[in-house]
Amino acid sequence: MKNTFGNNISITLFGESHGPMIGATVDGLPSGIKTDLEYIKACLRMRGAYGKISTARQEKDEPIIISGAFAGFTTGTPLTVLIENTSTSSKDYSELFDTPRPSHADYTAALKYGEWRDYRGGGHFSGRITAALVAVGAILRSALEKKNIFIGTHISRLGGISDRGFIEYASDIDVLNSKLFPVLSDESAELMYKRIEDVAKDGDSVGGVLETAVIGIPAGVGEPWFDTLEGMISHAVFSIPAVKGVEFGSGFEIADMLGSDANDPFTTDGEKIFTSSNNNGGINGGISNGMPIVFRTAVKPTPSIYKEQKSVSISRKEERTLKIEGRHDPAIVHRARAVVDAVTAIALADMLATKFGTDWLRDN
Amino acid sequence: MKNTFGNNISITLFGESHGPMIGATVDGLPSGIKTDLEYIKACLRMRGAYGKISTARQEKDEPIIISGAFAGFTTGTPLTVLIENTSTSSKDYSELFDTPRPSHADYTAALKYGEWRDYRGGGHFSGRITAALVAVGAILRSALEKKNIFIGTHISRLGGISDRGFIEYASDIDVLNSKLFPVLSDESAELMYKRIEDVAKDGDSVGGVLETAVIGIPAGVGEPWFDTLEGMISHAVFSIPAVKGVEFGSGFEIADMLGSDANDPFTTDGEKIFTSSNNNGGINGGISNGMPIVFRTAVKPTPSIYKEQKSVSISRKEERTLKIEGRHDPAIVHRARAVVDAVTAIALADMLATKFGTDWLRDN
Amino acid sequence: MKNTFGNNISITLFGESHGPMIGATVDGLPSGIKTDLEYIKACLRMRGAYGKISTARQEKDEPIIISGAFAGFTTGTPLTVLIENTSTSSKDYSELFDTPRPSHADYTAALKYGEWRDYRGGGHFSGRITAALVAVGAILRSALEKKNIFIGTHISRLGGISDRGFIEYASDIDVLNSKLFPVLSDESAELMYKRIEDVAKDGDSVGGVLETAVIGIPAGVGEPWFDTLEGMISHAVFSIPAVKGVEFGSGFEIADMLGSDANDPFTTDGEKIFTSSNNNGGINGGISNGMPIVFRTAVKPTPSIYKEQKSVSISRKEERTLKIEGRHDPAIVHRARAVVDAVTAIALADMLATKFGTDWLRDN
Amino acid sequence: MKNTFGNNISITLFGESHGPMIGATVDGLPSGIKTDLEYIKACLRMRGAYGKISTARQEKDEPIIISGAFAGFTTGTPLTVLIENTSTSSKDYSELFDTPRPSHADYTAALKYGEWRDYRGGGHFSGRITAALVAVGAILRSALEKKNIFIGTHISRLGGISDRGFIEYASDIDVLNSKLFPVLSDESAELMYKRIEDVAKDGDSVGGVLETAVIGIPAGVGEPWFDTLEGMISHAVFSIPAVKGVEFGSGFEIADMLGSDANDPFTTDGEKIFTSSNNNGGINGGISNGMPIVFRTAVKPTPSIYKEQKSVSISRKEERTLKIEGRHDPAIVHRARAVVDAVTAIALADMLATKFGTDWLRDN
Repeated sequence: MKNTFGNNISITLFGESHGPMIGATVDGLPSGIKTDLEYIKACLRMRGAYGKISTARQEKDEPIIISGAFAGFTTGTPLTVLIENTSTSSKDYSELFDTPRPSHADYTAALKYGEWRDYRGGGHFSGRITAALVAVGAILRSALEKKNIFIGTHISRLGGISDRGFIEYASDIDVLNSKLFPVLSDESAELMYKRIEDVAKDGDSVGGVLETAVIGIPAGVGEPWFDTLEGMISHAVFSIPAVKGVEFGSGFEIADMLGSDANDPFTTDGEKIFTSSNNNGGINGGISNGMPIVFRTAVKPTPSIYKEQKSVSISRKEERTLKIEGRHDPAIVHRARAVVDAVTAIALADMLATKFGTDWLRDN
Repeated sequence: MKNTFGNNISITLFGESHGPMIGATVDGLPSGIKTDLEYIKACLRMRGAYGKISTARQEKDEPIIISGAFAGFTTGTPLTVLIENTSTSSKDYSELFDTPRPSHADYTAALKYGEWRDYRGGGHFSGRITAALVAVGAILRSALEKKNIFIGTHISRLGGISDRGFIEYASDIDVLNSKLFPVLSDESAELMYKRIEDVAKDGDSVGGVLETAVIGIPAGVGEPWFDTLEGMISHAVFSIPAVKGVEFGSGFEIADMLGSDANDPFTTDGEKIFTSSNNNGGINGGISNGMPIVFRTAVKPTPSIYKEQKSVSISRKEERTLKIEGRHDPAIVHRARAVVDAVTAIALADMLATKFGTDWLRDN
Repeated sequence: MKNTFGNNISITLFGESHGPMIGATVDGLPSGIKTDLEYIKACLRMRGAYGKISTARQEKDEPIIISGAFAGFTTGTPLTVLIENTSTSSKDYSELFDTPRPSHADYTAALKYGEWRDYRGGGHFSGRITAALVAVGAILRSALEKKNIFIGTHISRLGGISDRGFIEYASDIDVLNSKLFPVLSDESAELMYKRIEDVAKDGDSVGGVLETAVIGIPAGVGEPWFDTLEGMISHAVFSIPAVKGVEFGSGFEIADMLGSDANDPFTTDGEKIFTSSNNNGGINGGISNGMPIVFRTAVKPTPSIYKEQKSVSISRKEERTLKIEGRHDPAIVHRARAVVDAVTAIALADMLATKFGTDWLRDN
Repeated sequence: MKNTFGNNISITLFGESHGPMIGATVDGLPSGIKTDLEYIKACLRMRGAYGKISTARQEKDEPIIISGAFAGFTTGTPLTVLIENTSTSSKDYSELFDTPRPSHADYTAALKYGEWRDYRGGGHFSGRITAALVAVGAILRSALEKKNIFIGTHISRLGGISDRGFIEYASDIDVLNSKLFPVLSDESAELMYKRIEDVAKDGDSVGGVLETAVIGIPAGVGEPWFDTLEGMISHAVFSIPAVKGVEFGSGFEIADMLGSDANDPFTTDGEKIFTSSNNNGGINGGISNGMPIVFRTAVKPTPSIYKEQKSVSISRKEERTLKIEGRHDPAIVHRARAVVDAVTAIALADMLATKFGTDWLRDN
């Protein structure tokens, strides 16, 4: 059981919310992938604060690659990227040591790691760590883009408001990757933004559903058992804090369909074979079929709210009321999309490296 | 990328629908776990045909453990279990070689493995292989039960009909494990059964949603990143053919809740700490919190239907119509529950073995 | 910690000396490798008994591939090969349960697995299991040969008698692979054979040193740290029972050389670059340099001898004398070479699959 | 194929000779292991320069733990240690880009990584990286010492001079760990030191053999196949640059013994069972038997010498002569012992964590 992901390209995240730096070490990258710091920073900005609805900790997020890259390209040896923590507040967290925040990891961390845990600001469980994930994801994502593989994610649902679905995948993905608040319909975007503001005023928080599309994955990627495309992607996506569901294609809806409606008929233009519907989200038998890979991710509302909540003293086994001070995000869905994109890039790059050999990912 | 699952207890499935045998090899089991063939067969019966709604291939499913067990207990060395294929029909599958069945893995298998694939009856992609998964799962499940860890799954939704949810986990799980058609409400069971019969008459198929509960998992199991409980369980569950979605706790519904409703308040009886709701499905920060682990699995309708479907000739890039002959199941949801139970046992046993050492799983 | 080897091509051995069958499961093979049963059997014969000096258990060694192969080629899904145990004697092993044979694994098995171990004939520790290793190795070896990669091993030293070293690698390897008693010099072969006969008459046993050469491995295979070529090959070779040392190139001798003698000067014929000596055994920095890979393996004398030995009662903590009955080999060096060849093929195939992608191993 | 080692405690090394920092990331440590910087530095000093015979690059080696530790103990989440490179000279390495140093990794790096490699000072292949290995090894070694497991290594042979063998393991190990030039006999130490000085004057270099003993490992650790103690230790040890051989117990000598001499007879004092000789180096069937684990490592002479050597132009395929400028060590055997100790601690800690669960390594 590991905090490491990937068979051929393995990523380990490290760092704590209030440590000096966070980062990631990646083993298995080929040499010859461009490590474009501007591109990485652009991806980090998509994970960053947005407008007035992200009042939380704002970091400069300056990634430094200290190994595995030389003269702007990966060298093929393990790459480590570091990001300094510049905004660690000096506030006293000792109250939280014994009074866990509901639906955070404070309590489970206490049970797993005992007295030695770094409880300050969520420690290693902090959403802060996802910045390292996004930085690594950016490197792989740019490599995939050179192979004409593109990833895009939008907020498909938030607080009762729905976005339109993907229509033209290539251009929709393009549009999403230019937006900090990733919604396809501008009208929905406005309504969602307004909804978050309202919830924030009330000291509450809201979740949402992200929908991701990947185009350009060659058919034939994935394994029949265990390392299915769905299994690998969901494994990666579920490690994003706050994710509580992942579904592919028509997902839970397909469970209510008849086979005759759910099946995706094959068709052809005489050159390529494709399916006329995509209820399977581009995956059959765990393996890509050449259609866009489509999945949705359920993100729970940020557990940090300003309202008074019920908790306990872990040591005394007594009830407590808790009011979480400080800055929190009323919604993280729009920021989480950068992390979903990143882990998708990571999972796919690993599977492609297995199939074609690691050097296949090299720019050329 | 592998057809193998687990860090400390690793399982590899092997076999093809029309090969002589299917089976599984398990590396990392401790010595001293009882290998009760009657219990294994009972689990296999839950995966077996049921009533008139399972017209498909019926096998005797006689598991043979050829290694890693001696005098009724595991020895601690790799265990291999074999199940003979007794019902492989001699029919000609060569048509399917070039005309893939929609939403089956025929097409992706062709692209991944090329001309060398065993296309007969779905080959290694066949649901038949899940019998081996259930056999291995049974061994681990019986070990978990000795540690007071119990797993139960019911059909929570099928063809528009809902079952009641879990109320008393321990007794509900007990009841489910005594039923071949696992529905908590007898009335819902009847309606669901009737629905499947109707769909079958029409030559069509139906999917459904399974809900699984696990009780007795000690708090503190799981990792913060990547090998989260959600990540490991979903990885395993998504490898079951036909699964298209997995959600934990309130899952996709939690995405529509406010934080103040979604958060699970801590409470205590002065001895134990628990939460008064369970929207997080027993998992915070990827780690068990001592509450029941609850998740739901979306199962698509069996892609094999009697209706005429659109397909293509892979070699000629021409459209074809296809009518799948032979015996098919109009629904596999009730049978899939045995497989969900099995992979859940497998994922949890692996994570427990990592935390406590493999010998912890030994009977005592 | 696992009884499984390989990153992309993973092999798990299973079976016990007195179980019904032994075998291996291989995950990660590509489709399209020929599974030539005659070739596998030829490799098994090299591991088999030889002349009058192998009086031990003689099995028919009929390998059966029950999965992962179809119409004479691998399918790309996990391959399981079984070999029946036909010569398990019905003798009573219960004495050995409490009185461990010196330098066998009886005592360590007792401590690791406890009362549940299969103690009959060494159980899973039996040299018998290497038959499965040889069968799998044969499949990979034949795939490597199609890529012009050839492996050969000779007895370089036995009971004070030395064989000549490799001179012309390609033809020497060829010669060795046609011999059941693999010695390059016929005179040395005769002396060694005689030496084994003499030792056997005395109820004793003898070890030896094997030297292996591999030609045709492309330069650039291996990793700088941990998964070095030396690390991977030695990891595999040390799992052969009775192996106590592995050295590459000039090995322990290089430790006594001066740098100016030990360094392998580069030279070129204007087309290829090579080194004029090969003290590094074809490996620099853990990576192949295009020269023949050369290593030597120290094999201890078979611990089963006819002489009376000192042992203990594990349960009573008292001294015992032990006389091992039955059939034993006075030497296994000549048989071990088939296993060294097999694990070498396994380790190299895995590393090549990582570098070039698994499909690279496919015949074409 | 990976630059990562360990099943439950996984270590990835990163960094280049001339990058800003080197370091290591460790996944799988339990919480509650003391991270004593003074102890780590003491281990780094054993790897450091010694007397006048180490003229090479001298770094301050100030390890900084940036994650996974809090208040002086591990937290249980991934630990990353960094060491700054303070002594990277600005000299021009471009000549070496095309003219590889014999028996270094320059040529194989060029073939594996291509034009993107960091060729400066050996890049990621530099012995410099072993400082990170020693830092991580120190953390695990101190954890093992709390469990009464001790590791010690001496130079058993150098330039024709032999040290005495281990007599009293516990006190010998103690003595060795207090010496920067680890030789048991003071007389041998002086002769070896003198020998290195002589070789250095001649612009040449010398290798040697290290012998390592480990006491206190409980019986029953290791696996029968593949992850044998020998396999795991050798895998780790062979990744140390310059290592060309590893042998356990009587190693290559056992190959020349008769079974009746080589077998280690069991004996008992009525309480403990042990063997009266230790030709198997404390390991039977891949598993520890409770006796000291003993192995020897062949270290080749440093390939950097002052003498003129033959090389080639990689691009032009022409012969070249090469004279390596700068500072080099005439011997690294005494420094390599710190690295052998470190990787031994790493391999053993991983195997113990698998057997007993990771938390077993926690201080208490």
